[in-house]
Amino acid sequence: MADNGPPDAGIVQVLQDLANRLRIHSIRATCASGSGHPTSCCSAAEIVSVLFFHTMRYRQTEPQHPDNDRFILSKGHAAPLLYAAWVEAGGVDEPDLLNLRTIHCDLEGHPTPRLPFVDVATGSLGQGLGAACGMAYTGKYLDKAGYRVFCLMGDGESSEGSVWEALAFASHYSLDNLVAVFDVNRLGQSGVTPLKHCTDAYRSRCEAFGWNTYLVDGHDVEALCHVFCQAAQVKNKPTAIVAKTFKGRGIPNVEDAENWHGKPMTKERAEEVIRLIESQIQTNRNLIPNPPVEGSPQISITNIKMSSLPDYKVGDKIATQKAYGLALAKLGRANGRVIVLDGDPKNTFCEIFKKEHPERFIECFTAEQNMVSVALGCATRGRTIAFVTTLAAFLTRAFDQIRMGAISRTNINLIGSHCGLSVVADGPSQMALDDLAMFRSIPNCTVFYPSDAVSTEHAIYLAANTKGMCFIRTSGQDTAVIYTPGENFEIGQAKVVRHSSNDKVTVIGAGVTLHEALVAADALSQQGISVCVIDPFTIKPLDAATIISKAKATGGWVITVEEHCQEGGIGEAVCAAVSGEPGIHVHQLAVSAVPPSEKPSELLDTFGISARHIIAAVKNTLMN
Amino acid sequence: MADNGPPDAGIVQVLQDLANRLRIHSIRATCASGSGHPTSCCSAAEIVSVLFFHTMRYRQTEPQHPDNDRFILSKGHAAPLLYAAWVEAGGVDEPDLLNLRTIHCDLEGHPTPRLPFVDVATGSLGQGLGAACGMAYTGKYLDKAGYRVFCLMGDGESSEGSVWEALAFASHYSLDNLVAVFDVNRLGQSGVTPLKHCTDAYRSRCEAFGWNTYLVDGHDVEALCHVFCQAAQVKNKPTAIVAKTFKGRGIPNVEDAENWHGKPMTKERAEEVIRLIESQIQTNRNLIPNPPVEGSPQISITNIKMSSLPDYKVGDKIATQKAYGLALAKLGRANGRVIVLDGDPKNTFCEIFKKEHPERFIECFTAEQNMVSVALGCATRGRTIAFVTTLAAFLTRAFDQIRMGAISRTNINLIGSHCGLSVVADGPSQMALDDLAMFRSIPNCTVFYPSDAVSTEHAIYLAANTKGMCFIRTSGQDTAVIYTPGENFEIGQAKVVRHSSNDKVTVIGAGVTLHEALVAADALSQQGISVCVIDPFTIKPLDAATIISKAKATGGWVITVEEHCQEGGIGEAVCAAVSGEPGIHVHQLAVSAVPPSEKPSELLDTFGISARHIIAAVKNTLMN
Repeated sequence: MADNGPPDAGIVQVLQDLANRLRIHSIRATCASGSGHPTSCCSAAEIVSVLFFHTMRYRQTEPQHPDNDRFILSKGHAAPLLYAAWVEAGGVDEPDLLNLRTIHCDLEGHPTPRLPFVDVATGSLGQGLGAACGMAYTGKYLDKAGYRVFCLMGDGESSEGSVWEALAFASHYSLDNLVAVFDVNRLGQSGVTPLKHCTDAYRSRCEAFGWNTYLVDGHDVEALCHVFCQAAQVKNKPTAIVAKTFKGRGIPNVEDAENWHGKPMTKERAEEVIRLIESQIQTNRNLIPNPPVEGSPQISITNIKMSSLPDYKVGDKIATQKAYGLALAKLGRANGRVIVLDGDPKNTFCEIFKKEHPERFIECFTAEQNMVSVALGCATRGRTIAFVTTLAAFLTRAFDQIRMGAISRTNINLIGSHCGLSVVADGPSQMALDDLAMFRSIPNCTVFYPSDAVSTEHAIYLAANTKGMCFIRTSGQDTAVIYTPGENFEIGQAKVVRHSSNDKVTVIGAGVTLHEALVAADALSQQGISVCVIDPFTIKPLDAATIISKAKATGGWVITVEEHCQEGGIGEAVCAAVSGEPGIHVHQLAVSAVPPSEKPSELLDTFGISARHIIAAVKNTLMN
Repeated sequence: MADNGPPDAGIVQVLQDLANRLRIHSIRATCASGSGHPTSCCSAAEIVSVLFFHTMRYRQTEPQHPDNDRFILSKGHAAPLLYAAWVEAGGVDEPDLLNLRTIHCDLEGHPTPRLPFVDVATGSLGQGLGAACGMAYTGKYLDKAGYRVFCLMGDGESSEGSVWEALAFASHYSLDNLVAVFDVNRLGQSGVTPLKHCTDAYRSRCEAFGWNTYLVDGHDVEALCHVFCQAAQVKNKPTAIVAKTFKGRGIPNVEDAENWHGKPMTKERAEEVIRLIESQIQTNRNLIPNPPVEGSPQISITNIKMSSLPDYKVGDKIATQKAYGLALAKLGRANGRVIVLDGDPKNTFCEIFKKEHPERFIECFTAEQNMVSVALGCATRGRTIAFVTTLAAFLTRAFDQIRMGAISRTNINLIGSHCGLSVVADGPSQMALDDLAMFRSIPNCTVFYPSDAVSTEHAIYLAANTKGMCFIRTSGQDTAVIYTPGENFEIGQAKVVRHSSNDKVTVIGAGVTLHEALVAADALSQQGISVCVIDPFTIKPLDAATIISKAKATGGWVITVEEHCQEGGIGEAVCAAVSGEPGIHVHQLAVSAVPPSEKPSELLDTFGISARHIIAAVKNTLMN
């Protein structure tokens, strides 16, 4: 068994030999696939060898065990090195390495949770540390368990601002169970990194961001053992290990040379190099990792029930973003693993949750990318049900993290407030008019767009119980409650809010525009014109069956109206849903330009999505 | 006239009085609008007074003059303070302040370039400094002019990683003409900022990031004059001024108090406060800013002509992303203000431009958010034609910056390479399958999707000559040249690539899938089935007329096929375009799940968008 105290000389040699075996696996796998990054693996071989076979405590046979130390390969392109470590640890069959990057093999070009030992997908740089922060936060404050979190990063990726958001977060929350290793191999993809081998610059930046820091020779196994051990003793500060390494270490004429990023070797050259590395291996021993420290609580995050029906009466006026704040706090009472992450804007109403459950509220400050990554980390291994909240407009800041969240098969829920034009005259920078396009493009993401307080509360509970990512779009304008508390809501099931046997047109709206549609329907009704009004409830999946059925019942005439741009929103979703049906016409009312600052009610009218415009569109349709 | 040497006592008093006048304007304007952020204005009143009336050199009557010093209000919510400064400088009529945040007034809730003195819109936090970097880079290296760039930032927004990307960029490029002012007022939106009033922490972070740094009392006019003057003497380093301030400074019971973010005062309270502040004003003088240092070169960025036709023969095989690299280099010969910004991934082929025009190539390293912001800055005042290049997947990282670019009315061009499944088995993290949804949602953005080398070159020239943002989507797979060099391309004009009088179905593809459609068309033709094949060339605007006309000619049967998710891409754009026409059916072939690592050709087939699937879809259609 390995020992995470100071290693004796024998162990040092075994760890060095293991590092070289990892090199050989990485070279062989990338050579077989004909693509991949062997040189990026070689720079970190000793770091990974020491972590996996000396420092980390985990059950090899249960890589998802909650007590295990966590490892995140933020420099995801070094995936073969990770797979190699698991070959040596027993979680990957060695011959599988030769199927790297092929469709039926789980060993992808960058790690994804198809593999049980991968918690979050990496490959878009600079995202691993934020997820590691989420895991470390969960370990320290929610699980109150002994596991440590290790994140291996490239030097190139430290140019990503998200890394510095995570560094600030980790020190702010005193995550002393977190260790970040910077593999400073001097070379990025196209050339030298901005800081080259100036490890002092990394050190001073990390220290300024409040981290405990060590400089180390990243190829010195003994020194690595020592600093990882030291880091465990440091209280109230996360530790950064700045490791000076060489890209392509161990490969003659390639080590520390430019133009070798992402290039596998030819078979002949690979075999030659492998023979050379093999000649340096002195032992044939393996090391069994230390077992984890037990102590993570048993938890359940499934089947969360609404303790009571929503406490609203039809006709009550409340903004859906306030209703979500209240619903979140209530949900927090139903399950102790519900957590909320916020990005500073108090006006998202999640302070209601904070007041009731302060120990499960994570203030992430104005750093949306990191907030999403932290949530991803918190939600790994089913440890929490995470809700991320900010203005819907600012979730665009985290599009790449959200995209990677889908690849990570995450279960997090995102709530965007102040959607559309309802931003108290703050102007277009605060308006979300593209968030539906963004979230609809995310694979397997459920997109809720509740239109009153009752449906908002149901959306929150459905999201909490739904596997996969969920987005809930909420509005700032007070609108009437239209559903009775006992109304049943299902994902993919629209509500026909207004209909008669004589409807001429089907109008589809959501949020504020649903209420505009109802005003329009009332006015039209007084003029003897009946329209059917549909609330889709979820925009993805969209209830195509109900829409098509009602569209057919109204002679094929459909009008969509939304606080969103024309592209990628409700209108296009409806167009696509009916595109296989003959004789259905869809007319889209949407926001088609950059709106200026003004009160929301004015803007709804100026941008053609108010009741007045719906009425005009219906009448225009009837003239056809 | 102001003087940017040390001020005498008289000038100090005038500057202090001006600061108080700015406070009064800010309070009055936000009181009138009933929304806005007077306390955020008050903390920075002295900073703005000194900058506008002592330090900066500019022509008040020509705010867009290329020689002017630049000012960027990164903390955009302090917009009334900026407007107040221009009231005093003569660019805004004082009564207009009372129309703040109303639809017919250019004084928006956050600054936008509707105002001639605003170069980039702000309001999504942490973006101003990147734009300032672009302006400073342009001033130092492209214009080689004497103008300085000043960026006023909030402390809350320094949590955004994009700020640290910009800080790293500025020191890497020794932007000594750049000054960032951190208005450290301790309070964010919902409470205290993570670093509170620890100005030392800001200082050490900035210093670690390579900046020259001063700590200063942000309400001490004389000290501010002094540090701005000192900063001008520092060579090869940008300067950060960390100013300790108080939010709501000058307003009794509000100054430095929580819960006053974004809250205007009542009319009574405002008048009371204004009387108090007025009582502290001792002078009635105004100061005329120093004139700018002349020296910016006269340039032209319009009407760029292709010097020769594209040098390709029909049938040549070349990836569109390589063709764009070659086209960019050629474009660089046609106009000396064409610049290229890259985010490290050498494989985007922009190194061809770099080799030919190294002085106009900006390596932005792996920091996509900052890269886009820098480009926005470089393109302000028409100083450059900026092309931003990286993998299309990673442009998602900069969605918020791109969104703000549209509000900024920017002219930048973004090129995304490796779109769709063609990422050399790297796996889903590198695949752009949502970029069309993102760029289509951007107001006024032209979205090119060229399908061969000839059309790619035309797209590059069209983008260079097109006002507004452009996105060009390129592919990594070698595909045949299908257009003759002399072919004419226009925005919004599709090409009918294959047609006959007997076509049964219209197939619409782009990039790699257009070539799959052509293979399918050939195979079907041999079986006696003719299909029409359309290359849309631009996805936004989409050539609805051609699509509808061909769809009608083929009995209303349309098949779209794309390397993109079903939502927000070509298929939905086509569905929307034909939604007003009766009898047109659209069948979408798109990527409907997260693809694994595998060679692109395999993936095209596995995910249902290869020629084989198009053939099957056509046959299936004919059975209807």
